Amino acid sequence: MTDDPITTGTSRRAFLRGTAAAGAGLMAAATTARAEGPDPLITDVQPWASEFGDPVDAAPYGAPIRFESHVVRRNVEWLTESPVSSINFTPIHALEGTITPQGCAFERHHSGAIELSKADYRLMINGLVETPLVFTYEDLTRFPRHVMTAFCECAANGGMEWGGAQLEGCQFTQGMIHNMEYTGVLLRDLLAEAGVKPEGKWVYVEGADASSNGRSIPLEKAMDDVMVAFFANGEALRKEHGYPVRLVVPGFEGNMWIKWLRRIGIYDQAVEGREETSKYTDMMPDGRARKWTWLMDAKSVITSPSPQAPIRHGAGPLVITGLAWSGHGKVARVDVSVDGGKTWAPARLSGDVKSKALTRFHYDMNWDGQEMFIMSRCIDETGYVQPTKQALRDIRGVNNVYHNNSIQVWWVHADGEVENVEIA
Amino acid sequence: MTDDPITTGTSRRAFLRGTAAAGAGLMAAATTARAEGPDPLITDVQPWASEFGDPVDAAPYGAPIRFESHVVRRNVEWLTESPVSSINFTPIHALEGTITPQGCAFERHHSGAIELSKADYRLMINGLVETPLVFTYEDLTRFPRHVMTAFCECAANGGMEWGGAQLEGCQFTQGMIHNMEYTGVLLRDLLAEAGVKPEGKWVYVEGADASSNGRSIPLEKAMDDVMVAFFANGEALRKEHGYPVRLVVPGFEGNMWIKWLRRIGIYDQAVEGREETSKYTDMMPDGRARKWTWLMDAKSVITSPSPQAPIRHGAGPLVITGLAWSGHGKVARVDVSVDGGKTWAPARLSGDVKSKALTRFHYDMNWDGQEMFIMSRCIDETGYVQPTKQALRDIRGVNNVYHNNSIQVWWVHADGEVENVEIA
Repeated sequence: MTDDPITTGTSRRAFLRGTAAAGAGLMAAATTARAEGPDPLITDVQPWASEFGDPVDAAPYGAPIRFESHVVRRNVEWLTESPVSSINFTPIHALEGTITPQGCAFERHHSGAIELSKADYRLMINGLVETPLVFTYEDLTRFPRHVMTAFCECAANGGMEWGGAQLEGCQFTQGMIHNMEYTGVLLRDLLAEAGVKPEGKWVYVEGADASSNGRSIPLEKAMDDVMVAFFANGEALRKEHGYPVRLVVPGFEGNMWIKWLRRIGIYDQAVEGREETSKYTDMMPDGRARKWTWLMDAKSVITSPSPQAPIRHGAGPLVITGLAWSGHGKVARVDVSVDGGKTWAPARLSGDVKSKALTRFHYDMNWDGQEMFIMSRCIDETGYVQPTKQALRDIRGVNNVYHNNSIQVWWVHADGEVENVEIA
Repeated sequence: MTDDPITTGTSRRAFLRGTAAAGAGLMAAATTARAEGPDPLITDVQPWASEFGDPVDAAPYGAPIRFESHVVRRNVEWLTESPVSSINFTPIHALEGTITPQGCAFERHHSGAIELSKADYRLMINGLVETPLVFTYEDLTRFPRHVMTAFCECAANGGMEWGGAQLEGCQFTQGMIHNMEYTGVLLRDLLAEAGVKPEGKWVYVEGADASSNGRSIPLEKAMDDVMVAFFANGEALRKEHGYPVRLVVPGFEGNMWIKWLRRIGIYDQAVEGREETSKYTDMMPDGRARKWTWLMDAKSVITSPSPQAPIRHGAGPLVITGLAWSGHGKVARVDVSVDGGKTWAPARLSGDVKSKALTRFHYDMNWDGQEMFIMSRCIDETGYVQPTKQALRDIRGVNNVYHNNSIQVWWVHADGEVENVEIA
């Protein structure tokens, strides 16, 4: 693929002259019962061009336009027993770029999203520290602030796919992920404030919600790039994302990104609480559970076309787009195949490529209008290559829920509809 | 300033042990009438820790938590004659990081924000082209897509300050700016599709709203980095930001970022329409109007502390933060002065520094609790230094509305309140 737009644009000129006319004709058909001739949307003065729109005091805080009401989080009721201990999915099939708006970024709660004010907020650091501390929200805002973009992926993202192509739609198969720009303070600054004792090796982080969701993090990671965040995408965290304070653990599974962060305990060993023993471990073929698989391996998915984003236009120029990421660092390359993996070609990486953050890729092709099996493959800066589902099954078996980073295959039909499938 | 958090953290350890205790005492006083002893928010089980929160189907598209209801766009009624031809302001005093959420990003309309569906959308390219074209929205989505972050600043941002320190609050003095990650196609790809004739030197871009807001852009800029955008911050453009299609003109004044883009006309000279003659020109001291001052020069502003964001805590560690940008490229350095410009020290640039995009800076200090005159100064990659207001007045006079990129001074009182002032 070339990233020279002029070359690409010119090469398809003849084609798009065609569609421009066709497009106009189509609309004429829809609006004037197949009338011959010009497009009234071009030739006639339209209401929106002759009447006032909304004034500047109409929406102090705006919302998406009504035409985009389908771009929302969705949950799958049968997946979980209770909606307060459940998950919903980011509509990644309808988004572009790299940022995920807070309003439609997936949620995972263990006892629901709580309402906690800054005035009522407290953060305790205790355990193996020189000085146990309690911080108010304001105390935290007085430490040096940093800005960092990171992806947050649930360990169970793609989990239903272990047993086959079960969920129809990119949102449901791969939508337990979001990517935001966070501002906050570094956990290592708070730990330095309390003074970690030499025997302190593990950091237990705990939320203020009723589930008191808690996880153990090795001190090395805690002293590296873990952030205690207040802002996401420029504004305060939303309630469902941990307002007023959440933990950001770049590259690690989402369950460790504790929301409504209440306590940081320093210990000489891992706590091994419920969420890191009975949950968030990987069942291996021999029946043993593999623990502490925190790092999210390199992965990618084509977001459009996909089952919820079929091709509505015919053959000709087609933009394939998707997301790629790696918990180990930067995405080095994304390959796309449109023939079920027989041949691969590199996609364009669009915008910035940040470490441990979502990377957007685009693949520009000329579609012949025939069925295709499309898939993407991420290679990260460590050289790791995203595996096929079968390659993962050979090692991990099929009794898994977590850490499925295998290649997702979409079957594009000749009519533009798309299906979630597996290929041998 | 050091950017080594551990050093910084340790250096203030003694202090914050103090505030942690104090903070707890303060809250105890507020909640239990000066009761001695422990903080009930630590010692007692709280409702949010013993009851379920919201389920995952509570908000398919979320909104900010009610505690943040003050973080909204605001307008100033006396500034303009009609709210449909007016402006509102981004609450930059309350935001952090670099991204501006669409929901609170400033709006400037000339006849109100219109509602235009993708089905009804048309984009015409005519004038000095080989083939006049009409694109539907779908046609546009078939060109190669790109991702680009850029600031959009109204030419009148800070305009009221020419005559003195008139508006109280960072939101009102400097809030006609936002910064988003856009996804769309390059204007040069669409122009290549139509084929610009050799005599075509100017591109006139026009909106579909009743004001048919239009501006002339030199062909060189149009063929460089101008984007026809569909997405902002990952999702579709909001209605008030030009849904479904707006122009992104990196580094150029906001008025040229045509919303609801309807037509692109290629001509051999500038159209010199209303918005580039009677408006958006600079009145010079001799009474002549300087035109075509499209590029927004390097600028910065301290967003907190500021009049709407006073210091609520006492002396000791204080985080000063703000935004810097340049229409000429990247921000190279931001200096901060806390003594009215007598001495300056470099601030930390936090997160990515992108060309023609907002850059966040932080300055960590120990406040002695005395009054301060705080200001920031941006130096961009061309070596240009943000001027004082007086330096600009010496050249431009005071009969101006547009292009005030001078240094903003805040007077921090000993009680933490902040005022908009000028200093000799």
